[in-house]
Amino acid sequence: MAKYKAPLRDMRFVLNEVFAADQLWASMEATQEVTPDLAEAILEEGAKLTENELFPLNLSGDAEGCRFENGQVFTPKGFKEAYRALAEGGWMGLGGNPEFGGQGMPKMMTVLFEEMLYASNAAFTLYPALNSGAALLLDSHASEEIKAKYLSKLYEGQWIGTMCLTEPHAGTDLGLIRTKAEPNGDGTYTITGNKIWITGGEHDLAENIIHLVLAKLPDAPAGTRGISLFLVPKFKIHEDDSLGEHNLVNCGSIEHKMGIKGSATCVINFDGSQGIMIGEPHRGLAAMFTMMNYERLSIGIQGLGLGEVAYQSAMDFAKERIQSRAPKGPQQPEKAADPILVHPDVRRMALNVRAFNEASRAFASYVGMQLDISKYHADDTQRQHAADLVALLTPVAKAFITDRGFDATVEAQQIYGGSGYCSEWGAEQYVRDARIAQIYEGTNGIQAMDLMGRKIFANGGKFLNIFTSDVRQFLAEQQGQTGMQDWCATLEVELKRLESVTEQVMQMGKENPEEIGAAAVDYLNLFGYVAYAYMWARMVAVAQPKATGAADDFYTSKVKVGQHYLKRILPRTLALEAQIQAGADVLMSLDEQAFYAE
Amino acid sequence: MAKYKAPLRDMRFVLNEVFAADQLWASMEATQEVTPDLAEAILEEGAKLTENELFPLNLSGDAEGCRFENGQVFTPKGFKEAYRALAEGGWMGLGGNPEFGGQGMPKMMTVLFEEMLYASNAAFTLYPALNSGAALLLDSHASEEIKAKYLSKLYEGQWIGTMCLTEPHAGTDLGLIRTKAEPNGDGTYTITGNKIWITGGEHDLAENIIHLVLAKLPDAPAGTRGISLFLVPKFKIHEDDSLGEHNLVNCGSIEHKMGIKGSATCVINFDGSQGIMIGEPHRGLAAMFTMMNYERLSIGIQGLGLGEVAYQSAMDFAKERIQSRAPKGPQQPEKAADPILVHPDVRRMALNVRAFNEASRAFASYVGMQLDISKYHADDTQRQHAADLVALLTPVAKAFITDRGFDATVEAQQIYGGSGYCSEWGAEQYVRDARIAQIYEGTNGIQAMDLMGRKIFANGGKFLNIFTSDVRQFLAEQQGQTGMQDWCATLEVELKRLESVTEQVMQMGKENPEEIGAAAVDYLNLFGYVAYAYMWARMVAVAQPKATGAADDFYTSKVKVGQHYLKRILPRTLALEAQIQAGADVLMSLDEQAFYAE
Repeated sequence: MAKYKAPLRDMRFVLNEVFAADQLWASMEATQEVTPDLAEAILEEGAKLTENELFPLNLSGDAEGCRFENGQVFTPKGFKEAYRALAEGGWMGLGGNPEFGGQGMPKMMTVLFEEMLYASNAAFTLYPALNSGAALLLDSHASEEIKAKYLSKLYEGQWIGTMCLTEPHAGTDLGLIRTKAEPNGDGTYTITGNKIWITGGEHDLAENIIHLVLAKLPDAPAGTRGISLFLVPKFKIHEDDSLGEHNLVNCGSIEHKMGIKGSATCVINFDGSQGIMIGEPHRGLAAMFTMMNYERLSIGIQGLGLGEVAYQSAMDFAKERIQSRAPKGPQQPEKAADPILVHPDVRRMALNVRAFNEASRAFASYVGMQLDISKYHADDTQRQHAADLVALLTPVAKAFITDRGFDATVEAQQIYGGSGYCSEWGAEQYVRDARIAQIYEGTNGIQAMDLMGRKIFANGGKFLNIFTSDVRQFLAEQQGQTGMQDWCATLEVELKRLESVTEQVMQMGKENPEEIGAAAVDYLNLFGYVAYAYMWARMVAVAQPKATGAADDFYTSKVKVGQHYLKRILPRTLALEAQIQAGADVLMSLDEQAFYAE
Repeated sequence: MAKYKAPLRDMRFVLNEVFAADQLWASMEATQEVTPDLAEAILEEGAKLTENELFPLNLSGDAEGCRFENGQVFTPKGFKEAYRALAEGGWMGLGGNPEFGGQGMPKMMTVLFEEMLYASNAAFTLYPALNSGAALLLDSHASEEIKAKYLSKLYEGQWIGTMCLTEPHAGTDLGLIRTKAEPNGDGTYTITGNKIWITGGEHDLAENIIHLVLAKLPDAPAGTRGISLFLVPKFKIHEDDSLGEHNLVNCGSIEHKMGIKGSATCVINFDGSQGIMIGEPHRGLAAMFTMMNYERLSIGIQGLGLGEVAYQSAMDFAKERIQSRAPKGPQQPEKAADPILVHPDVRRMALNVRAFNEASRAFASYVGMQLDISKYHADDTQRQHAADLVALLTPVAKAFITDRGFDATVEAQQIYGGSGYCSEWGAEQYVRDARIAQIYEGTNGIQAMDLMGRKIFANGGKFLNIFTSDVRQFLAEQQGQTGMQDWCATLEVELKRLESVTEQVMQMGKENPEEIGAAAVDYLNLFGYVAYAYMWARMVAVAQPKATGAADDFYTSKVKVGQHYLKRILPRTLALEAQIQAGADVLMSLDEQAFYAE
């Protein structure tokens, strides 16, 4: 059956050994109180909570799904109690601003806890994940008064936040939204419009739902520069924070979806609801991007969490499943057959999954570290350097982790044979739950456009240089280290490939703007494979000197899984390079009508 | 919404123009009556049937699923009527032996009809698909008496066949089965045992179900050489073909699955059921392979059919969906945004899907053609040559078409954005329905082992030489043809890559048997990409001289989609070659226990 134990050993390795988080935390004022002991305690408690409270509700939550009745949404059995446990334990505000009751934990810590959340119950996790993003948005863009009123409630989980962007005719292209906000003259606005795909738009977990809504003022210019941001509670809130009347925020229906069935995906109608503006008029989309970028990393971690639980569950199956004999002859002659892990192809699948999961964990932590530096570091240059890296790596984290996470769930499902297709084993749910992560929060194609267009092309590759310099500094440090020669040589080849392809696309893109979109997805993948090679090299560099060679030695396994990545996964860059070089004409030459024919 | 029109134009192109089926049919006695007019009429009627009767039941069949009550299985609403239409139209016996009431159509015809079936309703199609395989098995291995009694009923659809192989502890490893067959002394046997994952094991479509069951005689040797094959009807059959008492064949439950929800996947208990033996004692698995090989090509076509309907539906969505502006500036300035196909990345996805679908169609037809030659050709050498090709290409057809078919459904789903994840649009069902095709009828890993181990390694590459000779003959014919230079040069490079990798793996495999399994999946994919390049080259060779360059010209589109395959898909062979060369040690060096740790 499905199995999940938070991979604490590997999390500690990434946090303490690969990225020396304790040194970083000690060096910055805002994080000085985060000692290794505290971090360890949080990881252990987080593991208990997710393993014992959330994971047992995963399969049942999928089978039951959310129920919509007369405008109300009921979450699956047990979700309420689990939510309460999360809220009461202070977990909803783990990364929140301490000034308003948050726990103030660095992002490097919260990414690890988020992984546990998604792994144990992805559908459930979307409720708190959206809430964290909403709180971050308010913390970044709302007035002190609003922060004081809302943040502590959100951190406590008494109220819960959502993001309301999409409308039926406006998804990727938010400039087209029609939801209107008319000023009432008393500082409030009347919001009217229909939003769709609102995660947690309505449910029974918290006493109030705080919607962050994109809408247009009457004098708004057309397009994305005419969008403002409003806070619209489900129930109006009195001065003393007690709840008032229903605010005409109505749930019209919930979607029937491929997966994340315990997460309510709602049609939300604002039928003249009262809201307040957050930030400046017409600057709402920029403010919303604070939340979106946060959610993008979070959704990336959804891919990792599901890949991890898919791996553990598949190995739990493989351990018991005996079928056929090893190529070299019986390994367990006393049994009717050998365990399926004797077969090289089963190992290939398991190692693929594992090599991605471990690199994704390191990569998410690396991005988390840059986020912390960009926020808390005393030095301006360091902060800017980290912020540029975050801008560059966020679309990669969202798209590459979820793409490889989806692959991981599919490959883990394959290990089961037919059982993987039967719902009781859980493997097929992971595939369905992982699939959405490639689509929402900006499809992975949109992430690739963001990377290629805005983060690479628009600044002439400046952000990329920061990244490659970081890698090259590591390579320089590793010169002559035992066991690192192959890694350093290959990584240098891959960096040169990435740089040369970047140069080519920037050149082509100057002649023809279609080249940017034509290269985007293959380029993001190329970038991702190289970035994961860097993560693996950093992990191997730490593990190699400690490896004992023993069968059960963590470091020995680490080095060997790294070898699998290097030899049996990284060569995919060869194909991506050639595909990018094929250019846009191949894609654009077919007449549009010829796609629709017959 | 979902859309399906049988792609008759492309089917005619493959049948008549690429493979000149009419000439082949005219040249063989058994197929002389299949004129182009007859073929055309069958395709057109098949299109009507699948578009009008089966496709409308696809989404509803998925939502409703099969229902299990007191040992009985009820198929979704409308399935019974659709089954009757199929049976009454003579479609159940389309490829059946005319001696016993079949229509005797060549495989090249039936693969195209099967594609329509799977595209319009994959879950429904499994009932007739299993029946065709069961009939083929009986036609190949049963006595004249049994054939006379059963075949016409199966071709008429009055009775319907299944295959019963898997048991809870024995899937890939059929040597482990425990189902027993004890002789009753009167020529019949008493069958006792539990089978799982029996597609169509119980349902309400036909008056009797004819199970073909693997079981062991009391004196059976251990392993796969001790398996016999039995025919076990659900209801006993009197001399006059009227039905008698229930034969103690009981459905214990049906599986809850990721997809193909309208297909009943049953636990079938044989509780002392009466059966008769088919073929020789202990030779049952070989007989069953007649059916399995048939089903393997059929299941390959499931991947193609789902890829095709996914493409058509996604394009139907794309046609209406406007979002953002084209990179070069507004294409439809009168609208609020441009149709999404102006975006290069949307085209990349659409072209990927289409390039696979069209190559898969050609490849399935090519294998069908070899099957027809192997069965009907007057010349022994030609028959053997074709039979060897069929042996070589069957695992590729099963695994590569379903892997690329799954990719196609996933990529088509991505074109929708969020709508692709919502059930009402149908895209997510195609993904779920396609996923099983990579798992059942021997997982795609097992297909790869069959290709690499039995079809390549075991005969020293002899079958491969037949294939490469066929390709090289084509290349020789194309020398100097306009527009074929690039194709010929690239295909020769790819053939050499395939041959050199084959040589390397055979060499490595002699030293270490684990190398076969370690290379298998990457090798099958390498083979598949090269085989599809061959298919594309053959299609382009026909289309190029006829292409007018007009926007709506079929041949012009064909050449351009081919170009996409050549430039933006085929480079994947570069990565596969490197991954294979990495060898088995990378996979085998990690201790088995280290996979299970924590």
